[in-house]
Amino acid sequence: RRWKQERKAEKKKWKELNLLKKLEKQRVREMAEKQAEEQQQQQEDKGRHYTLSVALPGSILNNAQSLELRTYLAGQIARACAIFCVDEIVVFDEHGEDAKSVEGEFEGIGKRGKACVQLARILQYLECPQYLRKSFFPKHGDLQFAGLLNPLDSPHHMRVDEDSEYREGVVLDRPCKPGRGSFVNCGMKKEVQIDKQLKPGLRVTVRLNHFCCYHSPVKCLNCPKGSMGERTAVITTFCVCLPGAVFSECPFKEGYDLSIGTSERGSSVDQVTLPSFRHILVVFGGLQGLEAGVDADPNLEVTDPSILFDFYLNTCPSQGSRTIRTEEALLISLSALRPHIDEAAKTPTDSCEKENH
Amino acid sequence: RRWKQERKAEKKKWKELNLLKKLEKQRVREMAEKQAEEQQQQQEDKGRHYTLSVALPGSILNNAQSLELRTYLAGQIARACAIFCVDEIVVFDEHGEDAKSVEGEFEGIGKRGKACVQLARILQYLECPQYLRKSFFPKHGDLQFAGLLNPLDSPHHMRVDEDSEYREGVVLDRPCKPGRGSFVNCGMKKEVQIDKQLKPGLRVTVRLNHFCCYHSPVKCLNCPKGSMGERTAVITTFCVCLPGAVFSECPFKEGYDLSIGTSERGSSVDQVTLPSFRHILVVFGGLQGLEAGVDADPNLEVTDPSILFDFYLNTCPSQGSRTIRTEEALLISLSALRPHIDEAAKTPTDSCEKENH
Ligand SMILES: C[S@@+](CC[C@H](N)C(=O)[O-])C[C@H]1O[C@@H](n2cnc3c(N)ncnc32)[C@H](O)[C@@H]1O
Ligand SMILES: C[S@@+](CC[C@H](N)C(=O)[O-])C[C@H]1O[C@@H](n2cnc3c(N)ncnc32)[C@H](O)[C@@H]1O
Repeated sequence: RRWKQERKAEKKKWKELNLLKKLEKQRVREMAEKQAEEQQQQQEDKGRHYTLSVALPGSILNNAQSLELRTYLAGQIARACAIFCVDEIVVFDEHGEDAKSVEGEFEGIGKRGKACVQLARILQYLECPQYLRKSFFPKHGDLQFAGLLNPLDSPHHMRVDEDSEYREGVVLDRPCKPGRGSFVNCGMKKEVQIDKQLKPGLRVTVRLNHFCCYHSPVKCLNCPKGSMGERTAVITTFCVCLPGAVFSECPFKEGYDLSIGTSERGSSVDQVTLPSFRHILVVFGGLQGLEAGVDADPNLEVTDPSILFDFYLNTCPSQGSRTIRTEEALLISLSALRPHIDEAAKTPTDSCEKENH
Repeated sequence: RRWKQERKAEKKKWKELNLLKKLEKQRVREMAEKQAEEQQQQQEDKGRHYTLSVALPGSILNNAQSLELRTYLAGQIARACAIFCVDEIVVFDEHGEDAKSVEGEFEGIGKRGKACVQLARILQYLECPQYLRKSFFPKHGDLQFAGLLNPLDSPHHMRVDEDSEYREGVVLDRPCKPGRGSFVNCGMKKEVQIDKQLKPGLRVTVRLNHFCCYHSPVKCLNCPKGSMGERTAVITTFCVCLPGAVFSECPFKEGYDLSIGTSERGSSVDQVTLPSFRHILVVFGGLQGLEAGVDADPNLEVTDPSILFDFYLNTCPSQGSRTIRTEEALLISLSALRPHIDEAAKTPTDSCEKENH
């Protein structure tokens, strides 16, 4: 009997131990989960709370002296925007002659009026991670010299063995069992399987779960702006027909709440204090400046471009060259505006506050 | 007698009138002279009281993807320096393999080690007013693609009918009478005769006297820095053998009194307050950054480049590309530094005060 009692007690102890172990395991799991969540929260907080859009005329390509330089110029624009974490590039047509989308027949490099489409196409090509280009960019004349282009080296352009929580990918056309997700090529040695079934060919952003190995299902996210760590990564590009349409076709439902026109005839950037904002737009002109585009747009009642914008700024006071080219003005202006934008971004706007709480 | 007296009185009046007229004329002349002098004084005051030098490695040309782009890259450097009124570009050789001057045999474009000479030659070519290039730049392989280059549009690059007090010219090899000056081609319809006899082939800056017509002798000046109105116009370019030599071969007898190294590993430009200065030097690295050049220089005892400079600055905090190319960093950095330099330049240095009084 005594032996029986002892065995019972021992069994009970074992059970208790097991329970404790289980509880401990659960606690550890919970802690890990909480930590991961916090980390994610932190990272999301680090994402910018605003967007930066840039608008410029496609016609600037027509000033290039050769076909190679035409492509190179588009690359300069893309690089400048990547360096300054631009979220969106709007290519507008100064003369209203160009097609509105990147679709349409290609009719030879260098043709006037095709500049907008070509610029947008090259920008989109460069923005796409190298391992996805084959899927999204079939051979095209506009991209004939794309081999000369300097890579953007954006944070979302991952190397094959690079460790990252997020990766861009394309949904593969490969059968998957019901209840399991699609396969996605994320530019790693193996494709990953996500937790949703999506249409093949779709471009997605995938969050990789570092606690599992890469073969198990990972969560698939629609890339929210600013969520890939500190920097906003993906630049969207589209064409509009005339400078006025930059405003009317704004993809943000609230519209741009701060707009800046750039010109040597603007007031000095040094004295400006920008108000807090959520969606800022910086607009550049072409060879003839913003005046030319505004003049050509029948939907704009003004002819003085400074009236169109909240600020009309000279970003390079006492310039030593009679004229600054648009691709140069882009780097100069974004560099000169950066501290002013940073300062304004420190004070959140009302709408921003609302969305966060 | 009365008639005689009247005539005498009239004569006296006439004489007095004449004297008055003469005096008036003299007064007007004096006033005009004084005004002209004041204007000149004002213009000279408007000239900057400091110099801005930039140093960069010639090796950056070796990163270009084609021969055309190699030339275009040199053009980008020249344009950036012209826009920000740079007085002097020092091209240094990261590896100490290159020739020290622009002289020497040309051995084909694209050869490694020839990059410094080629960069300097293209910079000098672009800096030269178009109408003087034939005199100073014989046909040369380094300049094979110079036709692709965007003009600097510097203030000293005058068009043929442009009105300007100063013009750059070349002394012509044409006989001139003793006591009269040499003939100079200033890119105007007619050559001008100056007030000195100078060696044919010399590059001079001529001050045109607007009260006379262009055929009469004009004053010839040795172009003093900052005297051509608001902007310093002429960029001098030379090569040195290794980064350390940028300091030891400084053309200013006092040396550079403020030096800035640029790097993504520097401290943020936003927080910096520059002290007043007279000769500022901003140094850029190549593909491998300033570290590479400093490592290669046996005359430098340090290996950490930040010790070499008064300030070591990140001019593009939170950059969205893994790496910024030197030609981009030039525009970005000079734009970011401009307000800081302007601020520091407001307080004149002691040495500057002394020289002005
Ligand atoms: C070649 S410039 C246009 C020059 C044109 N002649 C004009 O007067 O406006 C092309 C564009 O670069 C930008 N830009 C040039 N200089 C600028 C400056 N000092 N400040 C701000 N933007 C400038 C403007 O967006 C301009 O429309
Ligand atoms: C291609 S980068 C050099 C990158 C190199 N891997 C490094 O770590 O320094 C060429 C030059 O551009 C300049 N540069 C690049 N990014 C910069 C930044 N954020 N701030 C200041 N200068 C920068 C520096 O002069 C640098 O030497």
